[in-house]
Amino acid sequence: MEKKAVSDQLVRPLVRNLQPYVPGEQPRISGLIKLNTNENPYPPSPRVLEAVRAAVDGRLRLYPDPTARRLREKLAKLHKCDPDQILVGNGADEILRLAVQACVEPVAAQRGPLSRRYLVPPVPALVQSFVPSYSLYPVLAAQHGAAFHGIPLQLDFALPDPPQLRFLKEWQPNAALTFITTPNAPSGRAYPTAQLEAICNHCRGVVLLDETYADFAPENALELALRLPNVLVCRSFSKAYSLCFLRVGYVVGPKPLIQAMHKLRDSYSVNGLGQIAAEATLDDLDYYRQNFRKIAATRDWTSRELTALGFRVLPSHTNFLLARPPGPPAAEWHRKLRDQKILVRWFDLPELRGYLRITVGTPEEMQTLVKVARRLLR
Amino acid sequence: MEKKAVSDQLVRPLVRNLQPYVPGEQPRISGLIKLNTNENPYPPSPRVLEAVRAAVDGRLRLYPDPTARRLREKLAKLHKCDPDQILVGNGADEILRLAVQACVEPVAAQRGPLSRRYLVPPVPALVQSFVPSYSLYPVLAAQHGAAFHGIPLQLDFALPDPPQLRFLKEWQPNAALTFITTPNAPSGRAYPTAQLEAICNHCRGVVLLDETYADFAPENALELALRLPNVLVCRSFSKAYSLCFLRVGYVVGPKPLIQAMHKLRDSYSVNGLGQIAAEATLDDLDYYRQNFRKIAATRDWTSRELTALGFRVLPSHTNFLLARPPGPPAAEWHRKLRDQKILVRWFDLPELRGYLRITVGTPEEMQTLVKVARRLLR
Repeated sequence: MEKKAVSDQLVRPLVRNLQPYVPGEQPRISGLIKLNTNENPYPPSPRVLEAVRAAVDGRLRLYPDPTARRLREKLAKLHKCDPDQILVGNGADEILRLAVQACVEPVAAQRGPLSRRYLVPPVPALVQSFVPSYSLYPVLAAQHGAAFHGIPLQLDFALPDPPQLRFLKEWQPNAALTFITTPNAPSGRAYPTAQLEAICNHCRGVVLLDETYADFAPENALELALRLPNVLVCRSFSKAYSLCFLRVGYVVGPKPLIQAMHKLRDSYSVNGLGQIAAEATLDDLDYYRQNFRKIAATRDWTSRELTALGFRVLPSHTNFLLARPPGPPAAEWHRKLRDQKILVRWFDLPELRGYLRITVGTPEEMQTLVKVARRLLR
Repeated sequence: MEKKAVSDQLVRPLVRNLQPYVPGEQPRISGLIKLNTNENPYPPSPRVLEAVRAAVDGRLRLYPDPTARRLREKLAKLHKCDPDQILVGNGADEILRLAVQACVEPVAAQRGPLSRRYLVPPVPALVQSFVPSYSLYPVLAAQHGAAFHGIPLQLDFALPDPPQLRFLKEWQPNAALTFITTPNAPSGRAYPTAQLEAICNHCRGVVLLDETYADFAPENALELALRLPNVLVCRSFSKAYSLCFLRVGYVVGPKPLIQAMHKLRDSYSVNGLGQIAAEATLDDLDYYRQNFRKIAATRDWTSRELTALGFRVLPSHTNFLLARPPGPPAAEWHRKLRDQKILVRWFDLPELRGYLRITVGTPEEMQTLVKVARRLLR
């Protein structure tokens, strides 16, 4: 057997057959207007940059705090809870993976790839999320060898209520883990805490509320993680706090769930400069709140302008817009905007194929977008 | 049921019963001589610090390169291979975990914690390593729900050869994954590539050569990862390159194995400043080679001095020494040195209880260590 074939045989069948998650492009093209991965258009606060620069010295030779104790203490103060109710992760993605590994049994062990017979699996091995939302969730289930159910959102991206959920055959109130992105991506729609609470109470497994975009929304559901025994709330410093580059996220929830995820994480998963940047961020929240207001104003301006051009733009409580463009198919818009050095996101999924997801950039960037869109429509 | 008990029930039995890995302490006590986690006593090169500082600006708002392409290209040049034969990780720990997840079937799925009946498990579900070595390996197996076999090293920490391995009932040449720490930690003993190659050829599963300390040794086995279909070689920027704080490791090996690990990793697992620091490191290798020589000289001086005091010091090709102290038990030495603000590592394991593991610090730090040891012996 040739060398490659031998190596191939050494990989688990489950992994060999895995379709990996494809992150949005991160091209470094000069002059590109990058509106494809929901990054904040504003830099971190000057105090954050100063704190990080001041830490770049011989101390890089030392290991960082393995449990990010100081950062957890600051977050605990902010959220009025115990530091042991918080786990800091290498971006929110690590947190989402750990939640699957901590709460969901793999079913595919030693049986090769997931086949049809796992489509109605034993409930402890089931991950579910509403669709469309973050397309990483089904990949996390597949990586782990667990089954995944996508539960359709309503046509306007509203959450079904428990009485409606009972009519959906895919919905399993005792799934081991249910992900809810709130506000939803890619639609930008925010959900009321009361509605989320009703769903959490209806679920017998763990519910992870993925609040990556909560800072842009009028309310958040963090208190549910402190009150209910089955709720985790995940946050990120990436988007709202302009720290994508340094990979810091966290999760708040009941201590037994936090402790379980802690046992599974790589000991030093959060780099030291990321910890320092996140701590400094919490000391300068006013700077970021100003940015949230600026982004909301730019978002609403963009929404009005695109609507005037014939786009159907969904209401958004996030830093991006989901919009159905007029005229040519969305895929063609995506390509043509790219040719004009404007990169937005297009998802090749049945329920999203007609839309563009557009990150809210600076006012100047959005003016350019509107100008180019107007030109393309002529 | 009270809230905590409900949350407890939502955690997988396997995770509930897991004994987590305990990393070495990272106390921030001023004036402490920290010789417990094998950090390099010298700072990163001035050019590395400069490169990192220069990158601390508004670009922190952007996602890093998800696959660390530029860093992989530089590493590929260094090791004379293809960038697709390299995966960069969030420290070597992420790499080790990914190797388990990519190659080893979990056996404990839906059956609760590992029990005695898994002690002779189906081979695809077995991880093995030599003992003593990095105590994370059995934890990685347990986290994944795989069985673990510890294979005893010879009394002088030499590797058994294949003919000797056949006599060890724990040894399984077709284990899915075999970890070999080379040079070995905690003994510091280096292994000849020819001997490693014989073991790799003898194994039908994947062999991961964990070369965290290879830069301090006279030879390394990287070429085996480029030649054999079942060998991965893992490296780290933490210890030799003074970058513990920024979490960068990598693995070299056959493309199908690298690709499998890539499919399982978090998309943006390597923070951007870590990537920049590692790239700048590769541009200034002479600085680090000088440090390796200084550390070797300090190590050999320390070894002679401790031997003169009655310590039995093992030969080391790393940046630490394993030494059996004279007089009181090693645990007591550990405590007494700590009282004198010198922190070394003591492992409460049968085969290591009589030893101290001492990281090689600066000449001044080691002079203090020898002075304090002399005083404690009076």
